Amino acid sequence: MATLYGIGVGPGDKELLTVKAVRIIEKCQVIVAPSATEDGESIALETAKEYIKPGTEVIIKHFPMGKKDRVIKAFEAYEFIEARLREGKDVAFLTIGDPYVYSTYSHMLKHVRDCGFEVQTIPGITSFCAAASLVNRTLVVGDERLVVMPATKVKEITDEKFVVIMKVYKREEEVLDILEEKGFDYVYASRVGREGETVLSEREEILKLRDYMSLIIASRE
Amino acid sequence: MATLYGIGVGPGDKELLTVKAVRIIEKCQVIVAPSATEDGESIALETAKEYIKPGTEVIIKHFPMGKKDRVIKAFEAYEFIEARLREGKDVAFLTIGDPYVYSTYSHMLKHVRDCGFEVQTIPGITSFCAAASLVNRTLVVGDERLVVMPATKVKEITDEKFVVIMKVYKREEEVLDILEEKGFDYVYASRVGREGETVLSEREEILKLRDYMSLIIASRE
Repeated sequence: MATLYGIGVGPGDKELLTVKAVRIIEKCQVIVAPSATEDGESIALETAKEYIKPGTEVIIKHFPMGKKDRVIKAFEAYEFIEARLREGKDVAFLTIGDPYVYSTYSHMLKHVRDCGFEVQTIPGITSFCAAASLVNRTLVVGDERLVVMPATKVKEITDEKFVVIMKVYKREEEVLDILEEKGFDYVYASRVGREGETVLSEREEILKLRDYMSLIIASRE
Repeated sequence: MATLYGIGVGPGDKELLTVKAVRIIEKCQVIVAPSATEDGESIALETAKEYIKPGTEVIIKHFPMGKKDRVIKAFEAYEFIEARLREGKDVAFLTIGDPYVYSTYSHMLKHVRDCGFEVQTIPGITSFCAAASLVNRTLVVGDERLVVMPATKVKEITDEKFVVIMKVYKREEEVLDILEEKGFDYVYASRVGREGETVLSEREEILKLRDYMSLIIASRE
């Protein structure tokens, strides 16, 4: 029976894949990688490509951000994967970061399982863990909570001490205003583990850069 | 100049180390691994041992749970590491999971930096990401928050939808009571990626097992 492997490839550094992810990428006959843009650039594929054996079928599937189009395109990807599984081929579906942290992998998994195929998932290094190691900053310690949230939820912060703000792009000003008002110390990291990796802690520099792939680690006493 | 490498070895599965962690473990002359128990068992060392080259100096340091003793023992470990760095040897300090998620690695890092040495940190797969992949369960999606907390904080849950409860041991009943009362659906995982790995979703079974290394992933609509 063919298996779908959902593989977290980590933040974008080819050395931050796990040994298990590499082993499975090497053995799968088909690799499917998502692309957020129409030009077909896939960060997940870029990250994993040196582990893909010659002769492997590699397909980039576009998962657009717009909701309506997304469902149609996702279904096309599911059908492609299902067809390959029916041929008895093992398929690796690559996801950036971890498959269960802000990813749409779970929808695909449901479809593939409903078709009766085996699924095995390999965890990945999250962008926030990679960023914390890069800047050498604690995410959470002791008896405290760690709250990971998209930028849209920053205004709901109450008594949190350790937070990670994801999807900061285009909301930089609002996020920094709230963090400063609430007495947080913060660091901004973009493109962690990839070309153009940047760490900033000055407000003005962050507002100038405004990178698409960015997050903020923040804490207060 | 010698470097201290802080290395997250992941949850305990030898295949869940990253390629980078393996490369650095292979090249360091000294490996320091923590043990929580006096008998010197080190899960971090067990996880990484097959990547350690013959001839490498390997030391297990006991970091006791009791507070007073802990400071003295930690200082002994720092002094050992500092001495090796002064000899020009690269040292790898292993931590289970990720070095910045509920670990005391940051204290040591401060000491080593204060002594003027370089530090480089390698992120690891967190226990909760490994557990989510094992049970194929979403940690967080869409515009929601993910709250990771120790069991002592469970009673503070208000409007959270996606939570991870760490350090469940000896508080199983209280945690399950609160999660059930608040309408959460949950799964309990212990020893993820290691011998004795167990996944449970029945209350009675969880209360019977009460494993030391366990966590709960929970969510509600």
